[in-house]
Amino acid sequence: MALIVQKYGGTSVGSIEKVRAVAERVIKYHQEGNQVVVVLSAMAGQTDFLIQLARKMTDDPDPRELDVLMSTGEQVSVALFAMAAKAKGYDARSFLGFQVAIHTSNLHGKARIHNIETDRLTKELEQGRIVAVAGFQGLDDQGHITTLGRGGSDTTAVALAAALRADVCEIFTDVEGVYTADPNICPKARKLDFISYEEMLEIASQGAKVLEIRSVEFAMKYNVPIHVRSTFTDERGTMVIAETKDMEKVLVSGLAHNKNEARVTIKKVPDRPGIASQIFEPVFQSGIVVDMIVQNTSEDGFTDLTFTVPKSDFYKTMKLVGKVAEKIGAERVLGDEDIAKVSIIGVGMRSHAGVAQKMFAALAKENINIIMISTSEIKVSCIIEEKYTELAVRVLHEAFGLGDEK
Amino acid sequence: MALIVQKYGGTSVGSIEKVRAVAERVIKYHQEGNQVVVVLSAMAGQTDFLIQLARKMTDDPDPRELDVLMSTGEQVSVALFAMAAKAKGYDARSFLGFQVAIHTSNLHGKARIHNIETDRLTKELEQGRIVAVAGFQGLDDQGHITTLGRGGSDTTAVALAAALRADVCEIFTDVEGVYTADPNICPKARKLDFISYEEMLEIASQGAKVLEIRSVEFAMKYNVPIHVRSTFTDERGTMVIAETKDMEKVLVSGLAHNKNEARVTIKKVPDRPGIASQIFEPVFQSGIVVDMIVQNTSEDGFTDLTFTVPKSDFYKTMKLVGKVAEKIGAERVLGDEDIAKVSIIGVGMRSHAGVAQKMFAALAKENINIIMISTSEIKVSCIIEEKYTELAVRVLHEAFGLGDEK
Repeated sequence: MALIVQKYGGTSVGSIEKVRAVAERVIKYHQEGNQVVVVLSAMAGQTDFLIQLARKMTDDPDPRELDVLMSTGEQVSVALFAMAAKAKGYDARSFLGFQVAIHTSNLHGKARIHNIETDRLTKELEQGRIVAVAGFQGLDDQGHITTLGRGGSDTTAVALAAALRADVCEIFTDVEGVYTADPNICPKARKLDFISYEEMLEIASQGAKVLEIRSVEFAMKYNVPIHVRSTFTDERGTMVIAETKDMEKVLVSGLAHNKNEARVTIKKVPDRPGIASQIFEPVFQSGIVVDMIVQNTSEDGFTDLTFTVPKSDFYKTMKLVGKVAEKIGAERVLGDEDIAKVSIIGVGMRSHAGVAQKMFAALAKENINIIMISTSEIKVSCIIEEKYTELAVRVLHEAFGLGDEK
Repeated sequence: MALIVQKYGGTSVGSIEKVRAVAERVIKYHQEGNQVVVVLSAMAGQTDFLIQLARKMTDDPDPRELDVLMSTGEQVSVALFAMAAKAKGYDARSFLGFQVAIHTSNLHGKARIHNIETDRLTKELEQGRIVAVAGFQGLDDQGHITTLGRGGSDTTAVALAAALRADVCEIFTDVEGVYTADPNICPKARKLDFISYEEMLEIASQGAKVLEIRSVEFAMKYNVPIHVRSTFTDERGTMVIAETKDMEKVLVSGLAHNKNEARVTIKKVPDRPGIASQIFEPVFQSGIVVDMIVQNTSEDGFTDLTFTVPKSDFYKTMKLVGKVAEKIGAERVLGDEDIAKVSIIGVGMRSHAGVAQKMFAALAKENINIIMISTSEIKVSCIIEEKYTELAVRVLHEAFGLGDEK
C-alpha cells in the first residue's frame, strides 16, 4: 500500500466526461489498496473565462478579489470529482485551500506555500476516503484566499506530497512524459525514463511547459519523486528524481527551445561602474523579466550590452531602454523579435568538457549563426535566428545522440 | 450614520454592468456616512447552470459536494462586486461564509444558521471598508461548506443584520415592494408602506415570492426591520416590521394566490382513531409537503378527507394514497390539478369578526364555487377552480378596498 498524490491538469478535467474518467482512474488506484490524494486544476477554459469576467469589470482587478474569483475554478472541479466518485459508490470528499489548510504568503496571484496542515487529510485517508484537494489556492495568515499563479496546481500537488510524506507525486497531463526534445518538431524525440530535478528545472525554465518551475524546486527541496505521465494512457511516463551517478554518464539529457523572447542591444555604452544597474533599473521596476544578459569586454571605454525579454514586453522595453540610452550617452538601441533560444541540458556536463563546442560545431555545420551564448553548470543556451529553430533542434538532437536508446 | 445590511438578488447582479450599478448604489450609501454590509446572490442563471452541471455528472449529486459546487456562484458575485468598488476608488472586501464565519447546521442544501461571528466584519467596517458577504452559504461545525437553500441569501442578510444589530436590512429585488395583490393580475394592486412580520409570513407561505419565509421568521425573532425595495429605482418600498396598533385597524392587508397546488380527496374513509396518521405516513415519508388538510365531520362512521400537495408531487401522491385507501377500505380517491388557492391576510382579523363571511360573499357574488376553506388567526384561504383565480383576486381586492389609499 502506498500513499499517492495525483494531480490532473485542466485538459484532464476539461468536461463532465473527463472528470468522470479521472474518478474512474483514481478509484482503480484506491481499489488496489493505495491511499490517494487527488489535486485538480480548473476545467480547461475556466481560468481564462474567469479572468475575462474580471477584465470586463475593470482593467486592473484588485488582486485580493481576483484570487477570490479565480479560486472558484478549482472548487468546481473538486466538487464534481467527488460527486463522480460518490456516484460510483466510493467515499470521497473535496477540500478547499482553507479546509486543508494550505497556508501561503500574502502575495495575491503569486503566493508561495508556507506550510500545509496534514491532520485533517490524514484522518480522512485513514477512514478510507478518497481525498480531492483544490489546486492553485491557499490562505494567507489574515484568512484571505490566495492563489499560486499559473501552473500552481503542480506546486499544490508536490507540496502536499512533501507534507504527507507521500511515496510519489504523479502529475497527469496531456503529454506522455518529458522528452529529449519537443516531439512536434523533432520526430526522433524520445521519452526519458528518468531526469534529475536540476535538469527538469532548466528544461522548464527554457520554455518546456511540462511542469511548473516552482513545483520542481519544491520537489527538489523535499526530495519528492515526481512521475510525469499521461492522463490518457496507462504507460509509465518520466520520473523526476534526485541526481544519480548513472545520470552523469549521459552528456546531454534533453533539449529545449523557446520562441517567446526578443533581443535588445544597446550599442556603445560608456563603460563605467553602475552603468548596468542604471540601464536595468526601469526595466526591473516595470516588472519585466530579463532572461539572458551578455556584455562584451570593453573596448576604448565603450561596450555593447545585449539582453532578452519576453516578446510581450518587447515594445515597452525598447521605449524604456531608449530613454536610458539617451541619458547615459549610448550610441543607439537595436531590437530583434525574430530570435529563438535553443538549449542543451544535462547534469553530465559537469564532468565532461567540450559539450558547448560540440553544440557550436553542430549549428555551424548547418550554417546557423549564433547571436548570443549563455552557459550554466548544466546548460548551454544559444540565441539564433527564429527561422532556424526546428532545424537547430533536430541537428542538436542528432549530434548528441538523443534519439538512441541508452 | 447608520449600519445598513443590503441584499441584492440574482437579477440585480445578473451582468457585469448590473454588478457595477450595485457597486455605485452601495458607494452612495457609504458616501452618506453609513456603514454598509452587502449580501449578494449568485448572478441570475448561475445557480441553475451549476445545478445542471451536477446533474450531468449524476442524477443524485452528493449533498455535501453539491454545496461546495453551488457556493461558487455567490463567491463570483462578491469578488466582482468588490473589484467594481475598488476600481472606483473605494475600499471594499469580499467575505465568504467561512471567513465571516457563518456557522450553520450540517443539513446540506437546507442548512440553518446557528450563529454569526461579528468581530471580523465589525473591524472591517470600523476601518471604513465596504463589506460584501456571499449569501446562501455557511460552514458546519466540521468545517464543511453548507448552503441554506433557495432564497437563502435573504436569510443571510437578515441574520447578519441581527448579529450586527444593524439599523435596517434592505432587500433589493426586482419588484418595488410588497403589494396588496399580484400587480400582474390585479391592476389596482397597491404597494404597502408597512406590513407586519406575521402578515409577511402568511403572504410568503401563500405563494408570493418577495421574501424567503425563513428570513421573515428570523427578522421576527430578532426584530430586524426589513425594507423590501427595488434595485432599479430610489423609491421607498415596503417596511416589514413588528405589528403596531395602527395595523390592527386595517381589516385585510393583502391577498395572495397560488396555482401550484393540487387536491387529493379520499372518499368514505372509515372513521376510526389513527386513520389520518395511517393515510399521511407514506406521504410524509416521501418528503411531500402537505398544505391544507380538511376532514369533514363523520357521518355513519365514514368521512371524506381532502388535502392539497404541490402539483409536482401530485402523481406520486395519488399512487401512494391509492394503495393506502385500498388497505383501509376507503371507497375511492379523487384528484384535481385545476385548482388555485386565494388567501386574504391581515392582523386586523384578530379583532374583527365577519371577515371570512365577507370573503365568501364576494366570491359567491361572482358565482365562484369554494372547494375548500382553511383559516388561521390572520388568514383565510379558499381553494377554488383554477380558471377563476384572476377574477377572484380582483373581486376580493375590490371587496376589501385594498386599492384605496388608507
